[in-house]
Amino acid sequence: MTTTNDSTNSPWHLAQRCARMNPSVIREILKLTELPGVRSLAGGLPSADTFPVEPMREAAARVLTDTPREALQYAASEGFAPLREWVSAQMTAAGIDAPADRILITNGSQQGLDLIGKVMLDAGSTVAVETPTYLGALQAFTPNEPRFEAVPCDQDGPLPDGIAALPVGTRFMYVLPNFQNPTGRVIPADRRDAIVAAAQRAGVPLVEDNPYGDLWFDQAPPKPLASRWSEGTLYLGSFSKVLAPGLRLGYMVCPKPLYSKLLQSKQAADLHTGSFSQRIVYQVIRDGFLAQHIPTIRERYRAQRDAMAAALKTHLPAGSDWQAPSGGMFFWVRLPEGCDAMALLPKAVEAGVAYVPGAAFYADHPDARTMRLSFVTLSPADIADAVQRLGNVIKAHLASLPSTVAA
Amino acid sequence: MTTTNDSTNSPWHLAQRCARMNPSVIREILKLTELPGVRSLAGGLPSADTFPVEPMREAAARVLTDTPREALQYAASEGFAPLREWVSAQMTAAGIDAPADRILITNGSQQGLDLIGKVMLDAGSTVAVETPTYLGALQAFTPNEPRFEAVPCDQDGPLPDGIAALPVGTRFMYVLPNFQNPTGRVIPADRRDAIVAAAQRAGVPLVEDNPYGDLWFDQAPPKPLASRWSEGTLYLGSFSKVLAPGLRLGYMVCPKPLYSKLLQSKQAADLHTGSFSQRIVYQVIRDGFLAQHIPTIRERYRAQRDAMAAALKTHLPAGSDWQAPSGGMFFWVRLPEGCDAMALLPKAVEAGVAYVPGAAFYADHPDARTMRLSFVTLSPADIADAVQRLGNVIKAHLASLPSTVAA
Repeated sequence: MTTTNDSTNSPWHLAQRCARMNPSVIREILKLTELPGVRSLAGGLPSADTFPVEPMREAAARVLTDTPREALQYAASEGFAPLREWVSAQMTAAGIDAPADRILITNGSQQGLDLIGKVMLDAGSTVAVETPTYLGALQAFTPNEPRFEAVPCDQDGPLPDGIAALPVGTRFMYVLPNFQNPTGRVIPADRRDAIVAAAQRAGVPLVEDNPYGDLWFDQAPPKPLASRWSEGTLYLGSFSKVLAPGLRLGYMVCPKPLYSKLLQSKQAADLHTGSFSQRIVYQVIRDGFLAQHIPTIRERYRAQRDAMAAALKTHLPAGSDWQAPSGGMFFWVRLPEGCDAMALLPKAVEAGVAYVPGAAFYADHPDARTMRLSFVTLSPADIADAVQRLGNVIKAHLASLPSTVAA
Repeated sequence: MTTTNDSTNSPWHLAQRCARMNPSVIREILKLTELPGVRSLAGGLPSADTFPVEPMREAAARVLTDTPREALQYAASEGFAPLREWVSAQMTAAGIDAPADRILITNGSQQGLDLIGKVMLDAGSTVAVETPTYLGALQAFTPNEPRFEAVPCDQDGPLPDGIAALPVGTRFMYVLPNFQNPTGRVIPADRRDAIVAAAQRAGVPLVEDNPYGDLWFDQAPPKPLASRWSEGTLYLGSFSKVLAPGLRLGYMVCPKPLYSKLLQSKQAADLHTGSFSQRIVYQVIRDGFLAQHIPTIRERYRAQRDAMAAALKTHLPAGSDWQAPSGGMFFWVRLPEGCDAMALLPKAVEAGVAYVPGAAFYADHPDARTMRLSFVTLSPADIADAVQRLGNVIKAHLASLPSTVAA
């Protein structure tokens, strides 16, 4: 039993799990970046320029004209049936075994992670994650007090040998195969096959998170893990990056043995996802809107990606390491030896540029030299300026190091 | 470790808590009531006739015209600042210590219950509840594997002696003081004082849930528990019954020692509540809309309450027991000896009327003779008809009992 510190007379006691729940580093950093004059590469936000405002306005009006009572009333915990059918059709086309009666609509895919943790994790359970991994997944699973096992990764994603070496009874492995947050990497087709084979042999099911898969610039990413191992993969999708995150709409394709418990967990968590939001999104997308809309996002983000790639090449000092991502929203940069991205952040903010230190994305053994840079919120010109400032901060730091470092 | 039953080859394992998570009885019953020809008194839904569709339509259009980028973008986990300020002002006017920086916007107050469970309950922790209590609260707390302690109640609510007898270390007591779901009872002012005094002596903080408080017919209910013991009461409110539940908007007034952990828990659960929904609701209510709107709901519900009171008096057999509620949405009826509300339900549905058996609302020792009847979804004429059918089913059942029952 943990007693709160704020007052010795307080009647409130916190659950043990609270000791492991800490403020998001990113959240604290984002506050810094709101200072005037700071060009932020720190956000994980899609560009608001991509939001289909006019279609949303029309859809909202239409929904409140045609079905006001239904849109404003309590609704099924499973989600709006036509939206579930739509997701089912999309997922089936992607090769996933995804009947509508195993689709669950969630408040963004973040809620899916929360429900998964509830339904699959006991205190002390092992969860495998990538190195590094999405910080929000660590936060979603943590309240269930699991033990994280960080699977070694290379630039193509998790190493199959690392999966083979997972402890017996590992509850699942969480994987973000397309343009991963934070690294931007995409897992190639042959590595996907190897991951699935290793996971099957180890008896470790997969949780596949795919918020960025549609944001490819050159070619579509390989088929999802769920299409390679349907009964052993729980798949999460989201409308946040292809429509708008402010509606908080995501979905999960639930393996049969989990569906009823995930549904009960959803019902206990908040009864259901907002009826109005679900109907607006369905109204917007039902007639093929995304097929025209998503290419416009790709085009915009591709130009921003190119601007950042050029700027990094121009302004970052030798010894810095990165790969231009082929989709998504992020560059992942490893600074030269002697740099600590967290320690450098205050200097960067002073110089008018912000980023997220990479250390927050590791379940263990953080690499202090890494940082995540978003390329989708600033214009190409501002990206160039921000990266130049960043390069100057890093170069100044390197110049200040004693030359004996390399000795 | 619990293995799923569906397949011996399944790689999925369920957390232990899943063994305690069961389908909602009400949910299953509601499916029955959707059969054609069934007049349902079973729902917990507000009347869709009360939804302010036109103001919602105007607000949605206004929000997407004035602040489309903000309404569709990721937002703060705490909630929309002006909405938090509005709640703070309302709660302060109700006598609660509720600065805006301790208001958390949630996906309906159901999500507040989920977050409370996460932050305050370990496996085996004791939670005190009323007898009977809101089923959704039992469901929200259950995933944390607590032990429920049902505090004895009379028609004025929880008995202070029952609170005094709670085990040391009881994490909190959950109380719904105004027009409780399911009983419809309101706790009088002097009982509120006695509850607070007993809770303070026992060191048991209170979670006060108030979804129905504005739906009074004759006079406003007494001041909230939170106004009597601010530092020891966590207060939950909702827009579901005064505006519309389909937007999923509720709020909590968090005691200081809990705020940061509840916020982190909210962030981990789904990042934030929908920006668009929050802005629509704020746009609707900001200029005093509720002061004109809520009285129209009261008037409607009062007439329906009167219709049900008259019908029960006319059609229920002697030995039935109920009190007409002075607000809210529900009658709570106790049938004569020899009746089991769950066993009678199929006959009732056959006769064209549905209700919720009361047994589902007890943490332990259910009273099989109880049932919950909603009076807000049917017209007065349909209420009269439904209650007549119900009365006939009960009378027929009583007539079928062997007359030796009383021997």
